[in-house]
Amino acid sequence: MALVVQKYGGSSLESPERIRSVAERIVATKKKGHDVVVVCSAMGDTTDELLDLAAAVNPIPPAREMDMLLTAGERISNALVAMAIESYGAKAQSFTGSQAGVITTERHGNARIVDVTPERVREALDEGKICLVAGFQGVNRESRDVTTLGRGGSDTTAVALAAALNADVCEIYSDVDGVYTADPRIVPNAKKLEKLSFEEMLELAAVGSKILVLRSVEYARAFNVPIRVRSSYSNDPGTLVAGSMEDIPVEEATLTGVATDTSEAKVTILGIPDTPGEAAKVFRVLADNEINIDMVLQNVSSLEDNRTDITFTCPRADGPRAMELLKRLQAEGVCENLLYDDQIGKVSLVGAGMKSHPGVTAVFCEALRDVGVNIELISTSEIRISVLLREADVKVATKAIHEAFELGGDEEATVYAGTGR
Amino acid sequence: MALVVQKYGGSSLESPERIRSVAERIVATKKKGHDVVVVCSAMGDTTDELLDLAAAVNPIPPAREMDMLLTAGERISNALVAMAIESYGAKAQSFTGSQAGVITTERHGNARIVDVTPERVREALDEGKICLVAGFQGVNRESRDVTTLGRGGSDTTAVALAAALNADVCEIYSDVDGVYTADPRIVPNAKKLEKLSFEEMLELAAVGSKILVLRSVEYARAFNVPIRVRSSYSNDPGTLVAGSMEDIPVEEATLTGVATDTSEAKVTILGIPDTPGEAAKVFRVLADNEINIDMVLQNVSSLEDNRTDITFTCPRADGPRAMELLKRLQAEGVCENLLYDDQIGKVSLVGAGMKSHPGVTAVFCEALRDVGVNIELISTSEIRISVLLREADVKVATKAIHEAFELGGDEEATVYAGTGR
Repeated sequence: MALVVQKYGGSSLESPERIRSVAERIVATKKKGHDVVVVCSAMGDTTDELLDLAAAVNPIPPAREMDMLLTAGERISNALVAMAIESYGAKAQSFTGSQAGVITTERHGNARIVDVTPERVREALDEGKICLVAGFQGVNRESRDVTTLGRGGSDTTAVALAAALNADVCEIYSDVDGVYTADPRIVPNAKKLEKLSFEEMLELAAVGSKILVLRSVEYARAFNVPIRVRSSYSNDPGTLVAGSMEDIPVEEATLTGVATDTSEAKVTILGIPDTPGEAAKVFRVLADNEINIDMVLQNVSSLEDNRTDITFTCPRADGPRAMELLKRLQAEGVCENLLYDDQIGKVSLVGAGMKSHPGVTAVFCEALRDVGVNIELISTSEIRISVLLREADVKVATKAIHEAFELGGDEEATVYAGTGR
Repeated sequence: MALVVQKYGGSSLESPERIRSVAERIVATKKKGHDVVVVCSAMGDTTDELLDLAAAVNPIPPAREMDMLLTAGERISNALVAMAIESYGAKAQSFTGSQAGVITTERHGNARIVDVTPERVREALDEGKICLVAGFQGVNRESRDVTTLGRGGSDTTAVALAAALNADVCEIYSDVDGVYTADPRIVPNAKKLEKLSFEEMLELAAVGSKILVLRSVEYARAFNVPIRVRSSYSNDPGTLVAGSMEDIPVEEATLTGVATDTSEAKVTILGIPDTPGEAAKVFRVLADNEINIDMVLQNVSSLEDNRTDITFTCPRADGPRAMELLKRLQAEGVCENLLYDDQIGKVSLVGAGMKSHPGVTAVFCEALRDVGVNIELISTSEIRISVLLREADVKVATKAIHEAFELGGDEEATVYAGTGR
């Protein structure tokens, strides 16, 4: 008998029929003799509908009230799933984030979990009940106010509960049946992975894979909670994310997959003095305005005037704001000129095997050369190579790299859509 | 400076535009220098939509989960009203029933308020905030589960909060601008009352007036909370419900109004032994099945066989179930025959003046005689006369009685629709 935490995304709960189908799956897990804790996102488009209502009554809605509003969505879906479970003859009890002991910081809209004290959930499990916990929400201990966890919050709730309850596995259900070697919409023979390490999943999430949200993987790694990525539409075992890369024997370490990202923009700062503190000025201004920087490149400075160029990427949505801030620095004489480019894309290769396979970078670059794709910027980690390219080149580059490292399978992959929060 | 509790029904909150209009009214009250606590029902049809979803996943949904589900509706409307208030420059904070200290019994779906401990609301008021409290919901102290208060629950929340906060007045807003001497849809010259006593309002609510729910008036009377019935569509001062009938000087006591009710059915039990305990058997079975009895009449027993007939009315919705239960008693020989009639209606005249005006019953019956309406059953209280008639006769009877006691005004009344919960 195991303790299983299951998380269902919004698209898995978009209608009463889907809710009944999810309930059937939950009851089947319970009937196998396992204890089951379920975390549900809000149904289908509920969150977007609530956001629209909020925008209609106040264009700049206060964050505390926004959290009070949005958390209603998960209460609704959890109560409905509990009802559906009872109709299949099992006992169920739903809990709000607060009732389940999900304690957070007080930052509304993007709170962090600081503690999980699921005594009531444990009691209900001991009474043989299936427990439903509203995802994405918690409570601040000091103010006793309801908070939300931001994007991917329900995944994080599920992993945090799994850690606190010492669960055997945390199953994340969506309309995707696992982690693939590449986006099957781009690479038709992309292969589903059976297993990958936390570090590899972290790198994939960081460079554009939408399957799991970065912070839920970080949480799982910190508390060593195995995650299984599964589809609520099939019985496929999905992909297991577990274990440290360090524990993979060298000869078994492989290349995991190719991730793509077209959500960033590139900013180039020309003619900035190559003296200590000048680059810091730039990044301090961006940090103070909560603009996240991804790749950074600083050129060798010119010998003539001891000035250099800095290129960085940031979320495309923040691009115009970043340029505004930098133009003010330019006006103060910090740099000579600014360039902005939002027609870029990033392709990354991730895998623990990179450490033990010499020549990966060479093969990577040759593959792009062979399809005539120009590299604008390269950045690497121990188990990742990322390159910046023209956005129009992303698909052909992804296919070429996937092919060059023989990551594909013999069959066509199932094409997936987006996932819930 | 006064402390005002305002309650808004679902139809007053059915769209973002209506929510903004309600928020404007709330802020205007605050700007007059008053402290304001607001209780909101769920928006428009939200509750019905949630009930439909529940029915679609489980035809017999568990009561605890139903409460978890339904309370989401009031969280949504309260958060939205709080946001709208902030857009008008005032400070607002929303509270769930639990956060506002609304403690209830554990009976899901129809819990009773046992205590209100609104410390957090009081603190927020002291900080100059407008407080929004989700109506219709509370928390059970022992199980810490969310409960709902049943029909009219938001009115009861408002009155209970007003009592706990020692508010000066509890304003109940809906699409009706006050309490009328009769339903203006039936009697075009029905007159809006400026004021009536708790007892008169209780009698009106008990005999079919839908304006205030009986238990909220009972609560207001017990804690002496003045209620003002107002429309969220106008600035009319509405009707004040306050004070005891006992305090009205005899010469000022008047007849309040005529109420109609076509929601009941009539059951007649023929040939039941006129010995102690036989009628008790009947009413025990009905009580055990939670069927509420309204009017009851027992005939003089016949001399031949010492048997009698009993007639009673009950909600039409419970009629078929009542008949099923009684047929079982008939099979056991408790009675000889059963009659069922759901084409009946009830018309009542209420008013503290009845005590001091002799001949009210005579005028009442003469008025019905003059329009050819037959009375099937009469029941009275100190300040009320109710008669059972054919349903088809209800309108003509109501008009005749309203006319006979000269209750009408010179103008046509505004026609109203239904109210929120």
